[in-house]
Amino acid sequence: MADASAETFPSERLAEFCAAVFRHCGVPAADARRAAEILLAADLRGIDSHGVARLSAYYGLLKTGRINPRPNITVVRETPSTATVDGDNGLGLVVGPAANQIAMDKADAIGSGWVAVRNTNHYGIAGWYVLEALRREQIGISMTNTSRITAPLWGAERMLGTNPLAIAFPGLEEPPIVIDMATTAAAFGKIEIAVRKGEPIPEGWAIDSEGRPTTDPNDMVNGGAMLPLGSERSRGGHKGYCLGAMIDLLCGPLSGANWGPFTPAFALSHPDPRRPVGKGIGHFFGAMQIAAFIEPDELKRQIDDWIRTFRATRPAPGTNGPLIPGDPERAAEQIRRREGIPLIAPVVAELRVIARETGVPFPP
Amino acid sequence: MADASAETFPSERLAEFCAAVFRHCGVPAADARRAAEILLAADLRGIDSHGVARLSAYYGLLKTGRINPRPNITVVRETPSTATVDGDNGLGLVVGPAANQIAMDKADAIGSGWVAVRNTNHYGIAGWYVLEALRREQIGISMTNTSRITAPLWGAERMLGTNPLAIAFPGLEEPPIVIDMATTAAAFGKIEIAVRKGEPIPEGWAIDSEGRPTTDPNDMVNGGAMLPLGSERSRGGHKGYCLGAMIDLLCGPLSGANWGPFTPAFALSHPDPRRPVGKGIGHFFGAMQIAAFIEPDELKRQIDDWIRTFRATRPAPGTNGPLIPGDPERAAEQIRRREGIPLIAPVVAELRVIARETGVPFPP
Repeated sequence: MADASAETFPSERLAEFCAAVFRHCGVPAADARRAAEILLAADLRGIDSHGVARLSAYYGLLKTGRINPRPNITVVRETPSTATVDGDNGLGLVVGPAANQIAMDKADAIGSGWVAVRNTNHYGIAGWYVLEALRREQIGISMTNTSRITAPLWGAERMLGTNPLAIAFPGLEEPPIVIDMATTAAAFGKIEIAVRKGEPIPEGWAIDSEGRPTTDPNDMVNGGAMLPLGSERSRGGHKGYCLGAMIDLLCGPLSGANWGPFTPAFALSHPDPRRPVGKGIGHFFGAMQIAAFIEPDELKRQIDDWIRTFRATRPAPGTNGPLIPGDPERAAEQIRRREGIPLIAPVVAELRVIARETGVPFPP
Repeated sequence: MADASAETFPSERLAEFCAAVFRHCGVPAADARRAAEILLAADLRGIDSHGVARLSAYYGLLKTGRINPRPNITVVRETPSTATVDGDNGLGLVVGPAANQIAMDKADAIGSGWVAVRNTNHYGIAGWYVLEALRREQIGISMTNTSRITAPLWGAERMLGTNPLAIAFPGLEEPPIVIDMATTAAAFGKIEIAVRKGEPIPEGWAIDSEGRPTTDPNDMVNGGAMLPLGSERSRGGHKGYCLGAMIDLLCGPLSGANWGPFTPAFALSHPDPRRPVGKGIGHFFGAMQIAAFIEPDELKRQIDDWIRTFRATRPAPGTNGPLIPGDPERAAEQIRRREGIPLIAPVVAELRVIARETGVPFPP
């Protein structure tokens, strides 16, 4: 992903810039710091599409009053092990951590906590939330529905989001296993890169506006759709659709958020949904105390063994063998903590526009 | 799937036969009835590979003392919202329902229940358990790890099972959405059918014993492996691997069961794992009271709307548009309740062998 035209910035400085922009938009200082931290966690882990590159979208929505900078986050329904949270149309980067905290507190208290969230917005990388749970000797689960971009199998239009899922398991001597994945065949960011480079995309990623398979990334951008994991019927595309649906149903109907094609657009430039069926988008968080199930050190020893066993898998020809989920992100983080975050020219240009409008200096 | 050579039997009769065989093996009458019910639920729903066709495998393991017909199922660790269950090496068809019941009881009591199960065996279709939760106004989640047959992405050997996941959501006027899926690109049963018919399999389903992609189903059977959902790196095969791993980790290390390549073989003809790392295979059940999150009728109205909205998706060319998860199984059940369960000749032959050995008459 290294781009010759990228400029590199220390992550701490970018975090300060993002936090200052959020504060400028009326977000309280602690919330602004947390929101910036989540954005930079994406950049550090190499998930460029979900980091500072999205500041402009969040900023646009805050600036035009479409996101509430000072939400009154409330629990609207609760049992000892569950809660439904209304995010008062706050930043997902603020509402998400608050709801995840409720799940983790319940897990500490009675073994597990499960929180459905409505009236929220995009929450950054799903993986950030489950890394928080790891710090508390918990297994965290994190899901969100997102703006529509994916066709269900055999559909010709955008009906679901990329709807990611994350979960993590701690090792003792080994680093944790961290799963953080969208339920589409490919990330939308890869389509954008192909458009920019004028290159075709592999079969199985996308359909055009008529619902036909395409390898032209412009077809997808111009009214086409992403395909669910599995891509087509013979390869299990119905299963990827089922996973996207599961996440949509847990985040949307269960919390009272919008779902499917009615999730609100993330960027100002995208059209609004046809009718509201709930409030905002939705998240779903779970947290389970490891000690509720097994001695934590025993689990961690087994995870170490799992990791070493899977690393020792006989490699397929032309490969170095299987990775452990979380390996690529951890490798990216080691490099980027040392060398800084590379930002491509269009992102830097957007940040300069924000700097001019807000008076927050850039480069920071 | 209709096979000209299939004989058809009423499901009730097949259930009686299965129950009588289980009783013959020492399984208590109520457990035998329940186990038979779960097998026939698979046949009724059109999942032939997981129904009566598997009686022979269960019977073989019971007959040779490798499954305990009268397990003392115990809760070995517990919090108000979680439990770890030891299945005492019982039938998964007996241990699974008992553990699922614990999860559902906890959900009734305090909002949700989450149960990891070790020292158990294959539990039939994952979907049966979540249909039980629906009857109690709960959203059920069901997972199991299974005997090794799937390669991780970039691996050349069998390291994971097919590791299915099920979850269901109730409609008000519409039938429920029922997701029940393996995390492989295709079902192993489809490989078996291709072998029997001497036909090639699509790309993306399997690798041969050297880890090379293959379209010859015999290559997979003879020491090759299934591929995870997504099949290859460019189409998200790492995500299918992540899903299989997630289920393996929740069912295995979290409960103290075996995991990955060390899960015990399901059939007597398969080799044993190289070393035990826990007890038996593992399941993981979740149950969430719907009323804990939202008014149940409000959820059901949203589910109805979701179903109708997705049914109205513009169809891709050459298709009738997206299905709703659970549609194919419900359609199969309508036909099979009326017309009976078709069993192919090799399955009928196996049942006749069991009849001869046990003295339980067949056809029943």
